[in-house]
Amino acid sequence: MTYCIGMRINKGLVFMSDTRTSAGVDNFATSKKMFTWSTPGERAITIMTAGNLATTQAMISLLEERSKSPEDRDPSILRQPTMFQVARLVGATLKEVIVDSSPTGQTSDDQFAASVIVGGQIGEGPPTVFLVYPQGNFIEITDDTPFFQIGETKYGKPILVRAYDRNMSFEEAIKLLLVSFDSTVKSNLSVGLPFDLMVYETDSFDTSRQKRVGKDDPVYQSISTGWGDALRDAFQLLPSYSV
Amino acid sequence: MTYCIGMRINKGLVFMSDTRTSAGVDNFATSKKMFTWSTPGERAITIMTAGNLATTQAMISLLEERSKSPEDRDPSILRQPTMFQVARLVGATLKEVIVDSSPTGQTSDDQFAASVIVGGQIGEGPPTVFLVYPQGNFIEITDDTPFFQIGETKYGKPILVRAYDRNMSFEEAIKLLLVSFDSTVKSNLSVGLPFDLMVYETDSFDTSRQKRVGKDDPVYQSISTGWGDALRDAFQLLPSYSV
Repeated sequence: MTYCIGMRINKGLVFMSDTRTSAGVDNFATSKKMFTWSTPGERAITIMTAGNLATTQAMISLLEERSKSPEDRDPSILRQPTMFQVARLVGATLKEVIVDSSPTGQTSDDQFAASVIVGGQIGEGPPTVFLVYPQGNFIEITDDTPFFQIGETKYGKPILVRAYDRNMSFEEAIKLLLVSFDSTVKSNLSVGLPFDLMVYETDSFDTSRQKRVGKDDPVYQSISTGWGDALRDAFQLLPSYSV
Repeated sequence: MTYCIGMRINKGLVFMSDTRTSAGVDNFATSKKMFTWSTPGERAITIMTAGNLATTQAMISLLEERSKSPEDRDPSILRQPTMFQVARLVGATLKEVIVDSSPTGQTSDDQFAASVIVGGQIGEGPPTVFLVYPQGNFIEITDDTPFFQIGETKYGKPILVRAYDRNMSFEEAIKLLLVSFDSTVKSNLSVGLPFDLMVYETDSFDTSRQKRVGKDDPVYQSISTGWGDALRDAFQLLPSYSV
């Protein structure tokens, strides 16, 4: 499995993905699942993938190849006029790859299936995030649903539900994502460090604020340990219930 | 779905189950999933069920019927000499019901499948808990795996992993289960209040320490609200991470 979150706050967007890929417990490796494209001053696009690795790599390669020389090749992710059109292109490319791999056509529980989070900003448009399904259709983030998760989403959801606040700073948002990822890693072997992290500030059109957070990262370690301690302390303060 | 936890601590056993049963979002109801049998001074047995309601109700009815007049009917849950034999009986009964319902025999992703947690104490034996699979086989709780979950298990697992301590009091164990259930309820519509709670103290052979925890229960409400506040406070104290 995989775990990725794309989140919108007032200041911009924050993305985080893990890097573990596995086909069974005896066959696992580290693989990047976060990819960015940008044109300074004009657009910044981030894509994160979950699902069949052959599918997601083929999809990224197609998008990548078509964006390398955008003058010659259409459709290119660097020439779409809006984020909505980017999401359409990603959806179409994803569906194309899945259908190509499936001898009998696409089915809902397809072994070649994958999901994608695509977010960013183009020109005058607001920063936004889409969740793209294997069928190629997609939904957009809203103020009511300010984050999307793909992959192994359940373990890390309760803290997101409780602590998300659209007014939070980037630092707080990163902290929240790290806690959500740490809870998942502690409960599920198919999600693993290091994590890829990216912060996108509204109107910056800059995809360079990226970082890989490893097991030995001192801040991650203190968040992981600190969160365990903080939970136990918080837990002590709750009222007791007796039967 | 469903959510049930059976946990062992040094002082004894604690069980909690939700009560929501649903066949689709437009067809849901409240149904008890916790059942107890006891013979004062000799045995105390608690069973919790998850899965197809027709299957689990039939299984409980068979166990119930056979225990009503144990002299006449065998095998009875009230005559098994050990908890291990109780688990075998529960497994056999569960499998019997599932196979009966399946026109083409049992398959692994059977729509009639169900899982069961059975725990308790008989005579000189220690208190213990088993997790029974639809195939009728089962695993026993150990010091390394001090709790079993069935149903919608992922949302509530991180806090159990972090805060479990075998030396905790019953009051703290109940608090822990309530927090785990509250996290699940806040993230998943298929798990719902009220919760059934039961505390079993080692060598008491008493199944009467039961309680139904409803939405309006003041202690539950203060734990639910208090936990949200405590998480946010704990979260503030963590170190910040910037990119």
